[in-house]
Parts: sequence; structure tokens; C-alpha cells
Amino acid sequence: MEMEEIIKNIAAADRKSMEASKAHWDNIAKPLDGLGLLEQMIIRISGIQRTPDISIKNKAIVVMCADNGVIAEGVAQSGNDVTAIVSANIAKGLASVNRMAGIAGARVVTVDIGVAQDISAPDLIIKKVARGTKNMAEGPAMTKEEALEAIHIGIDMVKSLKEEGIQILGTGEMGIGNTTSSSAIASVLLHMPVKEVTGKGAGLSKAGILHKAAVIEQAIALNKPEPGDALDVLAKVGGLDIAGLTGVFLGGAYYGIPVVIDGLISGIAALIAARLCPAALDYMLPSHMSNEPSCRALMKELGLEPIIHGRLALGEGTGTALLFPMLDMAYEVYSENSTFEDVHIDAYEKFE
Amino acid sequence: MEMEEIIKNIAAADRKSMEASKAHWDNIAKPLDGLGLLEQMIIRISGIQRTPDISIKNKAIVVMCADNGVIAEGVAQSGNDVTAIVSANIAKGLASVNRMAGIAGARVVTVDIGVAQDISAPDLIIKKVARGTKNMAEGPAMTKEEALEAIHIGIDMVKSLKEEGIQILGTGEMGIGNTTSSSAIASVLLHMPVKEVTGKGAGLSKAGILHKAAVIEQAIALNKPEPGDALDVLAKVGGLDIAGLTGVFLGGAYYGIPVVIDGLISGIAALIAARLCPAALDYMLPSHMSNEPSCRALMKELGLEPIIHGRLALGEGTGTALLFPMLDMAYEVYSENSTFEDVHIDAYEKFE
Repeated sequence: MEMEEIIKNIAAADRKSMEASKAHWDNIAKPLDGLGLLEQMIIRISGIQRTPDISIKNKAIVVMCADNGVIAEGVAQSGNDVTAIVSANIAKGLASVNRMAGIAGARVVTVDIGVAQDISAPDLIIKKVARGTKNMAEGPAMTKEEALEAIHIGIDMVKSLKEEGIQILGTGEMGIGNTTSSSAIASVLLHMPVKEVTGKGAGLSKAGILHKAAVIEQAIALNKPEPGDALDVLAKVGGLDIAGLTGVFLGGAYYGIPVVIDGLISGIAALIAARLCPAALDYMLPSHMSNEPSCRALMKELGLEPIIHGRLALGEGTGTALLFPMLDMAYEVYSENSTFEDVHIDAYEKFE
Repeated sequence: MEMEEIIKNIAAADRKSMEASKAHWDNIAKPLDGLGLLEQMIIRISGIQRTPDISIKNKAIVVMCADNGVIAEGVAQSGNDVTAIVSANIAKGLASVNRMAGIAGARVVTVDIGVAQDISAPDLIIKKVARGTKNMAEGPAMTKEEALEAIHIGIDMVKSLKEEGIQILGTGEMGIGNTTSSSAIASVLLHMPVKEVTGKGAGLSKAGILHKAAVIEQAIALNKPEPGDALDVLAKVGGLDIAGLTGVFLGGAYYGIPVVIDGLISGIAALIAARLCPAALDYMLPSHMSNEPSCRALMKELGLEPIIHGRLALGEGTGTALLFPMLDMAYEVYSENSTFEDVHIDAYEKFE
């Protein structure tokens, strides 16, 4: 199906299920709103699954891996070989996200959507749109066709995972140079000066951050991405991992699966999905407020309040793994706790 | 052993183990400091357990339950019967903290340290110091002897749990009226105006909050707690649950067990423990930033940065349950991940 067709068919989350979920929370024997943001997330999942009787048992984290041509400008400490090594490690179950997802009870699904080198692992899904993007400091990172192809790969991933019984998704990425493309998109779509959105990524020095900002400014000046056209911005200064994750957010909205945002990079994909289709916002859940400087503005723009403030800067979807057990705990209270009637206590009164 | 003797024998956490732990983190194949506050917590636990080769598998949450005489002044929506019902439910494994601890793999240990009514449950530990505190608006909440007795009960709980193999502890409480006593202590020990520290507890109206603040002001004016004498403050305007948890924090420091703070009430107990013995601070870990207005000042005073910002207001130790799987995930990365040598990548350079 064409992206336009999918976007046209994305409906808002179901308000009646959300109201029923809220009413159930308020009847559970504990202080009103006692679990705060976690209650709100369970309510949102009720709207997404269109029933207050939700299930979030079957979890997966989709990790999109891709290279960025812009690293030719020296914006990162590492090269394409690190993208290849770490992506293969994720596919083999040996990276940070795998350790954490194991404890969270989530499957990790690794997609090579644009790694420059050839990599292989038994469980790796190979969907290379290109061998990395082109250097955006010299021209557009990709064509619109490539961006759309990557978006469709993301949408199709959600379709197959839904068919396999997955009920909630996390998003992750691996790709040296992808905080550079994310920061470029953040600057254009959030109308923020490049210097304010550029951070240290996986560990740049102060001089390195200044150089990275200069490269981003050059890429924006050269390619003139159109702030009102998110697809144009994505193609000109984005990355294939971001495009793939944009598809995951759109797919989540289309197939009714809640999708958890990790840090800046997947958050930027969420922003593009929301610009392409505002109704898709209902299907997103935040996990953590990342260390990258534009993350606060991004979450505000998305209207999301992350529960984890961990100074995390790891990527791979690790923030979404951290959120999952918290959601499981909230769900356990939601589904198993006694109500006020059961324990013979009067319900708390509600005040503004 | 007398409390003074215990305090005298509390040593700072082991700096060498912390340095070794930090060095190990920096050698793991992932961005430097990528797990942010979670790395810092694992480092702190290394200092507490005096080895970088830590273990946090065996977890427990100690929930101290007690009533507060001050509820005679109408500072809470509920009465002593709710303390009794909910405390018994926690002991029976049916409350919010039990659901959440089940997922976190933590035992819940329920202590009746001062519930007004008689309660019973097979696993309830009954150590009633009194049937609730006296009404602090009319005189001291308890005697110094009662406060000390409750502190010793907390210390002894850690001793027995350590003997049973527990390696990390969470703290929780149940007691209608205990945000009133906590706010009174916060005002005195943090030198903050009563109106600034008084919040809605389990759900007061705006008028209810004003009345609660007036009662706290009256209690402080009448009892004149001495800000330089934390035990005096605890006895005059505190609660038996807070005193018991103060003992848990001191016991954790004495027996070398990390103790996780929940929200305001256990945070106030942590503050008293730190005032009685500054070295005890090394043994505390924060979990969440609670909704109560003094929590931010309290965490700043303790020098702790909670990772969870969830607008939680549930108590029972639920915030500590939320932290446990995050620590397990960080530990899994810490103990199982490849190092840079293993994966043939150069380590990231360190910059300020």
C-alpha cells in the first residue's frame, strides 16, 4: 500500500477505551493518580488497542542500522566499521540492548536498512536501501524514493511483527553519524539554531561539537530542506535508520501497536511521522529524556513527558528496554489490584 | 549495640572499588557514560559492597507501617482503619508494591512498627513501638526513647535480611498522615517555610493543603524541634515509620547493603540518617522524584539525582520496585557486555 493511503487510514486512538481505562485506575485501591505518568501510559495503550483490557506481554525492539555519508566530514569519532561491528553484534544478541531486552522480556529485531559494509548474522534482516546515505555536506543524503522505500520497510516490519503476535514495540538504531543527521532535522523542523541542537553524540570534544555544527549548517545551506515538507527534510539531511523508524511509527499507528520512542534519533523519526500524519502521535510513548540538547524541545513539540531522566546516551533502543518493566509493573497493578469495594475503603475524593 | 556505637563504625564506601568499577564501565564497548545515572549507581554499589564484582540479585523492600496521631486534626482524607487495611494487604501480598515487587523479583517485608489497630497476616512482622504516635499538634509525637527503639528495629531488620542473603534493599511505608509528619521534618531540617513543603499527600483539596500547613506550623511552634538535633526533630514531629526507615538507612550503611530511597517519606528518613551519620549517605540510592513539593530540595540536600520522574504519589516502596529492573539491566551490561578489545574497536577517547 502507498504511504499516502496508509496515512489516510490512520485513526485517532479510541477515546472511549481511554475513558474506561481511566475509570478503572480511579477505582483501584491506591491514591488517585498514584502511579502518575505510568497510569497515563496504560490509558494511552488502551486507546491504541481500542480496549481497556490491554495486553503488552509480547514485546519487541526494532533496531534500524545504517551508515551516514556525512562522517566523511569528520563529525564522529568512529567510522563505518563500527556501525558494521555493532550492528552485527546486536543481530547476534551480544550488544547492550540485547542484555537489557533479555531482562525486559523483549525480542530484538535487527534490520540492516543501509549499513555501508556487508554484515551477516542468522537473525539479521537485510533490507539495504543503499550502502549508507551520501554526504549531505555535498548534496542530498538520499533521494525521496530512497526515503520512501526505507519508510515502507519500517511499516512492513510492524505488519509482520503484528502477525507474529507482538503487542508493543520499542525503537532503536545504530549508525555512526546519526546524531549529526538527527540534529540537522531537529534544527530545520523545530526552527532551532544549529548550535543549540548539536551535542556530543557518542563522545565528541568541544572542538568536535563546533565542527559538527558547522557541517550541519553547511548541509542545510546547500540542500535547502523545506521545513513544511518533512519528507523533503528527511531525504536531504536525514538517514536511512531515521527513515526506517519513521515507518515503524507510521506502521504502529496504522496497525494499532504502541511504539516507544528511545532517545533523540528515534524521537526525530517520531517527529517526522507526526508531521506526515498528526494522528500518529496518539500511538507513541516516550521513554527517556536523552542527553542530546534538542531532546527537551522535541519532547515538548510531541507533547510527551518521558519518565526516565537518566542522562542516557547509548542508543540501540536501550531506553525503550528500560521502560518495559515499568509498564509491566503498572499493568500488574492495573489488572490485579483490588478495587476500593474489594477492600472496603471509600474511594478517594477527586479534587482539581 | 547502641546507635552511637553503630554510627561510629560506619565507614565511607570503598573508593578503590568505585574506581575499578568506573574503569570497567569505560572499557565496555558502548559510548562512554552511555548508561548515565545507571552507571553511577552500579559504581556506588561497588563502593558499598567493597568490590567491583557486585551482586544485586537478592532484593527486598522493607515497608514500615505506622499511624500518626496528628490525623485527629483532619490533615488526611482517611483514618487509621485505612492504615490497618492497607498494611495487612501489603503483608498478604495484595497491594501495589507486592504486584510491582513480584515483577522486579524483590521480596516485600512488612513491619507493623506502630499501627494503631491490631492487624495480622502470616508474614507480618509485628514490632509495635506504640499504637501510632501522639498528636503533634498537642505535644511531641513520641519520646526520644520511642524514636530510638524504632530506629533500632530498622537497624535489626537489615541485620536479619543480610543474614538471609539480601544484597540490596528498597524502603517503603504505609501510614495515613505520614506526609504531614514528613513535611514538618522537611520544613525544620531543610529550613523551608511550611507552606512551601506541604503538598496534597494522597489527594487533599487546596483548602485541605492549607489546613495541613496550619497544623504543621502549630506543631512546630508548640514542640520547638531543634534543627541541629535530627533525633529531637524526629521524635517531636516525626513518625514511627520514618524512625524505622531511618534505622534501615543506618543499618544499610553499617552492614554494607545499598538502600534505595522511595519518595518523600523514606527520603526524609534518609535525611535524618545522614544528619545522624554523614557517612551513611554513601549507602543510599535514589529512585524517583516524587510529586511532593519538598522532594526536589531534599534530593539536592542529599546530593542525589533520581532517574525516575514519574509524578508518582503512591508510597509503599513502589518507586524502589520500579528502579530494581533498571539496575538489573545496567548490571547485565556491566557484567556481560564485550569490552572494546573483544570486539576489535578502539576505545572512545575521553573529553571533558
